[in-house]
Amino acid sequence: MNYQQLLDEIASEVRPFLGQGKVADYIPALARVPGGQFGMALATVEGEVFGTGDWQTPFSVQSVTKVFTLALVLAAEGDALWRRVGREPSGNPFNSLVQLEYEKGIPRNPFINAGALVVTDRLLTQTGDAFGALRDFLRAEAGSAGIDADPEVARSEREHGHRNAALAHFLASCRNLENDVDVVLDHYFRQCALRMHCGELARATLFLARHGLRADGRRFFSRSEAKRMNAVMLTCGTYDAAGDFAYRVGLPGKSGVGGGIVAVIPGRCALCVWGPELDRSGNSVAGVEALDRFTTRTGWSVF
Amino acid sequence: MNYQQLLDEIASEVRPFLGQGKVADYIPALARVPGGQFGMALATVEGEVFGTGDWQTPFSVQSVTKVFTLALVLAAEGDALWRRVGREPSGNPFNSLVQLEYEKGIPRNPFINAGALVVTDRLLTQTGDAFGALRDFLRAEAGSAGIDADPEVARSEREHGHRNAALAHFLASCRNLENDVDVVLDHYFRQCALRMHCGELARATLFLARHGLRADGRRFFSRSEAKRMNAVMLTCGTYDAAGDFAYRVGLPGKSGVGGGIVAVIPGRCALCVWGPELDRSGNSVAGVEALDRFTTRTGWSVF
Amino acid sequence: MNYQQLLDEIASEVRPFLGQGKVADYIPALARVPGGQFGMALATVEGEVFGTGDWQTPFSVQSVTKVFTLALVLAAEGDALWRRVGREPSGNPFNSLVQLEYEKGIPRNPFINAGALVVTDRLLTQTGDAFGALRDFLRAEAGSAGIDADPEVARSEREHGHRNAALAHFLASCRNLENDVDVVLDHYFRQCALRMHCGELARATLFLARHGLRADGRRFFSRSEAKRMNAVMLTCGTYDAAGDFAYRVGLPGKSGVGGGIVAVIPGRCALCVWGPELDRSGNSVAGVEALDRFTTRTGWSVF
Amino acid sequence: MNYQQLLDEIASEVRPFLGQGKVADYIPALARVPGGQFGMALATVEGEVFGTGDWQTPFSVQSVTKVFTLALVLAAEGDALWRRVGREPSGNPFNSLVQLEYEKGIPRNPFINAGALVVTDRLLTQTGDAFGALRDFLRAEAGSAGIDADPEVARSEREHGHRNAALAHFLASCRNLENDVDVVLDHYFRQCALRMHCGELARATLFLARHGLRADGRRFFSRSEAKRMNAVMLTCGTYDAAGDFAYRVGLPGKSGVGGGIVAVIPGRCALCVWGPELDRSGNSVAGVEALDRFTTRTGWSVF
Repeated sequence: MNYQQLLDEIASEVRPFLGQGKVADYIPALARVPGGQFGMALATVEGEVFGTGDWQTPFSVQSVTKVFTLALVLAAEGDALWRRVGREPSGNPFNSLVQLEYEKGIPRNPFINAGALVVTDRLLTQTGDAFGALRDFLRAEAGSAGIDADPEVARSEREHGHRNAALAHFLASCRNLENDVDVVLDHYFRQCALRMHCGELARATLFLARHGLRADGRRFFSRSEAKRMNAVMLTCGTYDAAGDFAYRVGLPGKSGVGGGIVAVIPGRCALCVWGPELDRSGNSVAGVEALDRFTTRTGWSVF
Repeated sequence: MNYQQLLDEIASEVRPFLGQGKVADYIPALARVPGGQFGMALATVEGEVFGTGDWQTPFSVQSVTKVFTLALVLAAEGDALWRRVGREPSGNPFNSLVQLEYEKGIPRNPFINAGALVVTDRLLTQTGDAFGALRDFLRAEAGSAGIDADPEVARSEREHGHRNAALAHFLASCRNLENDVDVVLDHYFRQCALRMHCGELARATLFLARHGLRADGRRFFSRSEAKRMNAVMLTCGTYDAAGDFAYRVGLPGKSGVGGGIVAVIPGRCALCVWGPELDRSGNSVAGVEALDRFTTRTGWSVF
Repeated sequence: MNYQQLLDEIASEVRPFLGQGKVADYIPALARVPGGQFGMALATVEGEVFGTGDWQTPFSVQSVTKVFTLALVLAAEGDALWRRVGREPSGNPFNSLVQLEYEKGIPRNPFINAGALVVTDRLLTQTGDAFGALRDFLRAEAGSAGIDADPEVARSEREHGHRNAALAHFLASCRNLENDVDVVLDHYFRQCALRMHCGELARATLFLARHGLRADGRRFFSRSEAKRMNAVMLTCGTYDAAGDFAYRVGLPGKSGVGGGIVAVIPGRCALCVWGPELDRSGNSVAGVEALDRFTTRTGWSVF
Repeated sequence: MNYQQLLDEIASEVRPFLGQGKVADYIPALARVPGGQFGMALATVEGEVFGTGDWQTPFSVQSVTKVFTLALVLAAEGDALWRRVGREPSGNPFNSLVQLEYEKGIPRNPFINAGALVVTDRLLTQTGDAFGALRDFLRAEAGSAGIDADPEVARSEREHGHRNAALAHFLASCRNLENDVDVVLDHYFRQCALRMHCGELARATLFLARHGLRADGRRFFSRSEAKRMNAVMLTCGTYDAAGDFAYRVGLPGKSGVGGGIVAVIPGRCALCVWGPELDRSGNSVAGVEALDRFTTRTGWSVF
């Protein structure tokens, strides 16, 4: 398979989709990102990395980080986490309070905001520094010592973070946060504000394609746990469009409102696409298109 | 009408209901209130006050204060308030986030917690000191200079106030709070922590029975506004049991989880009952029984 | 009070509101009713009837009939009905399935469609002919032997009645219908299709203003039951605008999508207004305006 | 791989789970099925069939049929179906009206009852005989000419089918059924009442493992469509436990309240397990256990 040629062709094919969708505007720091950009990177389990377009332009990782915090918590405590968060698709917007109230403070899954706050809370308890643990993991896996949070984005998240504060206080009222609400939110906002580019994210996601092995060859978690992470990504990773993403792309994936999406082809490679314009579900329009074409061309969906 | 005899007889009749229901236990300071207490007071528009049982025992006024903050805001700005809060019965628990999300941050009515937070926010904007304005109004109307918040209850509310903090942050995320979330919550928690007894509350409610005239004879708001306040109390004043309360009692009323309920018989008198044990909707069991008997005996429901 | 002059003045004042709102169009037979019509009638407890505008033009009574079926069932079985239907305001559209499912087949109140189907089911069990019992009651109270269902409207209701059929089957699945679903629906559709004019409806509603006495002076139900009917009308009678109606009009009332509204001033009179153009809650725009003016002018709200 | 030995070992391991869960009791005909039974069959793409336990005992296929009706409609009309039904996980019970109302009559996916009614309606329009088309397909794929509906179960479904009737009428009220409600329900109830055994169901499901090829080698639909069917099964096939099923089993699957579950390992085989006792989500307790063990032992999840 000539990956480079394939990525270049896909980048060319999705060009007509640039400009469709809408850049996230809930915080000024994101709203300023110019549309019309597109990048795609592929990292193979053998260690090669291919990229096309703006694949080395850093962007705000946002909810894509939820994959890594979840992995860190599962590696540390395993299935104990599932007493505090479910693993069912949500069918509701990522920041809905409704479901959380109906389900008495147990978030539907770790990829909606409420669930991610619980995961960050767990990571904080385990490590004392949730953000630091996440950043160090990403630096190590991506091989990029400079990965860090964008302080302006973090500040902007905090200033416009009333919805997340409402979720966190509600979780606390249900006794489903162990740490101080403001501390959890601080780590969460910095986590969302991490900046990485497609190449870094594809490399950082490889441990899932390698069935649980880290970049340095050490086992991060078991093969079975890697599979289960993939299952959670497939059923819950793309907000309330998970069914559509499974139907069209057929890969475990996780998207963020910064426009990035990572996807895993178990045993082969990890992918990262980026295009800041989002569809109504909050997924990158060009990104989903590119992944759809990739699996159609290669026949490498999981199904 | 021999009010004293009537109140005494009702107090005797509701004795079997003491011990039914459950004292509010969401904060320790309330959970410690001994059950088995009952008081009832009646203040006539002519200025007489009658009482029976524990009618001079101060208790935590809690949501009953929402009548007075609403009145203060309506007196100051009139119908402008209704752009920020509805006046429809809620049909949901008083602290539900669900409805608030479905209705995009416009609380269903001013007597559910979310609505009361908006009212407190308005009062804060108007006066610079929402709690102080409320306390001064109550002192003047009740003729009791010592009325104040119980600092332990206020602190306890704050410490266990995650649900209200969630509501306030959600309102802020919908741009339906003008003041800082923490400042609004501080005034709200102190407001809930006010301590008064039945006699004071009955007197403080008289302005609604007097069609808008204050204790000193000055007009607080128009006759028409007094009627409208009564309408809001009748349809929304007793949490999600407003229909049942209208059916059984047939008076405008407002209850609190401290076990107090005020009620208005327009043109005649204001009533306050108190019994700390609550039914499942959060209304005093003995209090509703007493008001039911009062209107049955006198025939003075509004219908 | 010069009723005739008052009604004529109100009719003149509401003229600018004709044309606002939208004629019900869920069935063709209703959609054909010309807009721009308005009638108002007032029947005093002493037996006089006043009318203005199109007050003698028959229209489709629709949900206004729910007052009368409820009264018939309460007169026959009293509070036993409340085991099968609640009496809390709904806060949801009149034909919502959502609340019914959350509340396991117990409709929120007798004036939403699901609740009215339960009431019709009870009346069917009690009388063997729910529609006939209702029609005979209305003929007797209104003094108009010709009152009957419009067969075309009834047929049209049936043909477009899938939403009501869904509600009825859902109630049956919760074992909250005793009679055959199709039979209950047949009586319900004919009930909705009754045609009466404002004068007839005002007279037919007088038993509530007379505290339970029928047109022939016999007691229909107790004074207490009349008051309770009024309470249910005030809190639940105007769909999800009951709070607004109480605030503006301040009277027990019941509206229908044919554009009619009946209202009760206990001890004085019954009113009926009609204007086919509806607001978004399904209440007659001109009708609510007229009642608002009536209570403002007379000061006769219940509050 | 020694399939026979593997199946026998799994059957032995899941024995302790027999008796856990609860046989479906919403219709008498199902409630009478003795618990404690368990069967499992595996059909390879090469044409071999292996079975263990009660794998040749016919049972009521129920919702498992939804896989086949969906396949028939997609084969005939392709993506046009998705204008009338979604493909997102539901997160609600299979027969909920709530979601259907919020989403205006577009069922969340083709595997909840409302969605399956729409699929049956499409199949009826396409073939004139939805039940017959389904039965003939199953007979051909399973190679069993005797496959048919159990008339007693079909009658029982009809008699207790008010919830499905409510769904169908609601769909009709949203103009999302083309055929007569009673006709659609009749085909739907007979479809649910089909009786097959594990061996027949595993063979009938093979077309999905064969990437779209039927038993006779003809192409039923494209490789891409087979993958997409698998995606819908994985995300929506096991009621509101799809996330849990993906996590534990990691295969496209579809369950029914008769206790059967079919699952697909693309390119390898189709599986059918059966155990009549259900968990709270409506999936066979022993069946899910058996599939969990199968994928753990073989490592053949899709992830």
